[in-house]
Amino acid sequence: MTKKAFQDYYPEDLSHCYGCGSLNEKGLQIKSFWDGEEEAVCIYTPRDHHTAIPGFVYGGLIASLIDCHATGTASAAQYRAEGREMGSDPPIRFVTASLHVDYLLPTPIGVPLEVRGKVKMIKGRRVVVEARLLAEGKVCAKGEVVVVQMPENMRPGK
Amino acid sequence: MTKKAFQDYYPEDLSHCYGCGSLNEKGLQIKSFWDGEEEAVCIYTPRDHHTAIPGFVYGGLIASLIDCHATGTASAAQYRAEGREMGSDPPIRFVTASLHVDYLLPTPIGVPLEVRGKVKMIKGRRVVVEARLLAEGKVCAKGEVVVVQMPENMRPGK
Repeated sequence: MTKKAFQDYYPEDLSHCYGCGSLNEKGLQIKSFWDGEEEAVCIYTPRDHHTAIPGFVYGGLIASLIDCHATGTASAAQYRAEGREMGSDPPIRFVTASLHVDYLLPTPIGVPLEVRGKVKMIKGRRVVVEARLLAEGKVCAKGEVVVVQMPENMRPGK
Repeated sequence: MTKKAFQDYYPEDLSHCYGCGSLNEKGLQIKSFWDGEEEAVCIYTPRDHHTAIPGFVYGGLIASLIDCHATGTASAAQYRAEGREMGSDPPIRFVTASLHVDYLLPTPIGVPLEVRGKVKMIKGRRVVVEARLLAEGKVCAKGEVVVVQMPENMRPGK
């Protein structure tokens, strides 16, 4: 049995996101998991076409990985904070209010990237997630993402 | 004769970027142009799979559009600041140092998006670009991107 990722608990109608939706066949389909109590990790290997300057990973992909890993981490953390089982109704799904990424080093293409996220703050429906992106053990980017619980009227059919 | 976009002046070996490289067949291939003296514009219509919550555009795509439009705008502005023709050697190509995006409204999918960028500051090899992303006339996101001229040793073969 394979361990379920945070994103595998999203309900079907909220699983179409290009970055993290398990039902988006053309998307990245990233998967995030707890690694210890505090930190969540996502491993993703960019495709050849995810290049910037040849040899290096496209910054927009790095931003996308940090973004979706943060919304997933916030969801898992919020379920935990409420003492609820992941995936239980009503679903806890976050959207992004702001995204900040500092690109510290050119990120080499062709190797798995490790995105690590930690919840910095939960306040009401808002969560702040800090993230680092590593390649070959080096921190190539750092991010901070402010996410908010999806307003109910954004849900399909509402 | 079609007007050349900023990105069409990039040399071939620097035209593979997923967001803006004209030679990246799987990429977004965005195109940026001056609109007046101060502002540069890029129009891009997201594909159906660039969804977040169904009905809305994926935030990572929005970040990507803002990012590549900013590097293109910086290149055009720097050529102009130096009184040089676009595309003249040595090439002026920027990479991203930091990217900040505020998502103000859910961005509807299925309509052309307009990304508008203005140079806020040029200082040495560093340029700060402010951007707005509009859908149906409404500002859905704002961004600020710090870009720096690509170090020569990032160039392929160097």
